[in-house]
Amino acid sequence: MASDPAAFLSRWHRIVETRDEVALGEILAPNPSLGAPPYWQKFVGHDVVHYLLGVILQTIDPLHYHREWSDDREFALEFSGQVAGIELQGIDLITIDDDGRLVNIDVMIRPADAVAELIEQVTPRMTEFFAARSSTN
Amino acid sequence: MASDPAAFLSRWHRIVETRDEVALGEILAPNPSLGAPPYWQKFVGHDVVHYLLGVILQTIDPLHYHREWSDDREFALEFSGQVAGIELQGIDLITIDDDGRLVNIDVMIRPADAVAELIEQVTPRMTEFFAARSSTN
Repeated sequence: MASDPAAFLSRWHRIVETRDEVALGEILAPNPSLGAPPYWQKFVGHDVVHYLLGVILQTIDPLHYHREWSDDREFALEFSGQVAGIELQGIDLITIDDDGRLVNIDVMIRPADAVAELIEQVTPRMTEFFAARSSTN
Repeated sequence: MASDPAAFLSRWHRIVETRDEVALGEILAPNPSLGAPPYWQKFVGHDVVHYLLGVILQTIDPLHYHREWSDDREFALEFSGQVAGIELQGIDLITIDDDGRLVNIDVMIRPADAVAELIEQVTPRMTEFFAARSSTN
């Protein structure tokens, strides 16, 4: 599969629209990284990025894309949505690899109360994930 | 002055680099709007956007631009920097008008503690501004 920006975007939008967790796993590179809105440190690795992106996609609902910029393998995708009824605006900065798979995504949102609510919703599920992973290691 | 994306970007970068408050006022359209990281509601009007953008530019220091996307009159400009020593990543989504002046800017940053620190630093100066304005109205 060659790197085709239009094809990536079309797959990405379908995945977000349908919250398709399986297809989300397939569009990720083997060792992707995620810069999530609340944290400075990036999450690295297929399992954790797959899980955490999936949780974020379930938590921001509805989620609609607006302006899009693309430059070769680098995309900036503006979205709006809600977290627990709080309105938000956000951006996905995405880089894809030679095979058209996501190698990095940084997500930023405003305003601050939407970030706080996202932390509130996502933290318990992240804790579960890391607890389960550490108990099987 | 016609809308020239490259000319706008070159002026914008010079303004941010030098924190030039006068030139910042000149690059703004007569009635611009600003979506600031902490708040959902947009600030509208030349005075308030000029003031608040100036404060934000003084508060995020250092501030360096990285990836840039442009599509006609719409720009997405990635930056990194610090607020009171806290590392951050951010994006400016900028729209310019027929005359090459900024009509809207939305700013999003991560992580959450940088947003909290920005609120901490900016709120007292915003309060001063609105208090001064209401006392002269």
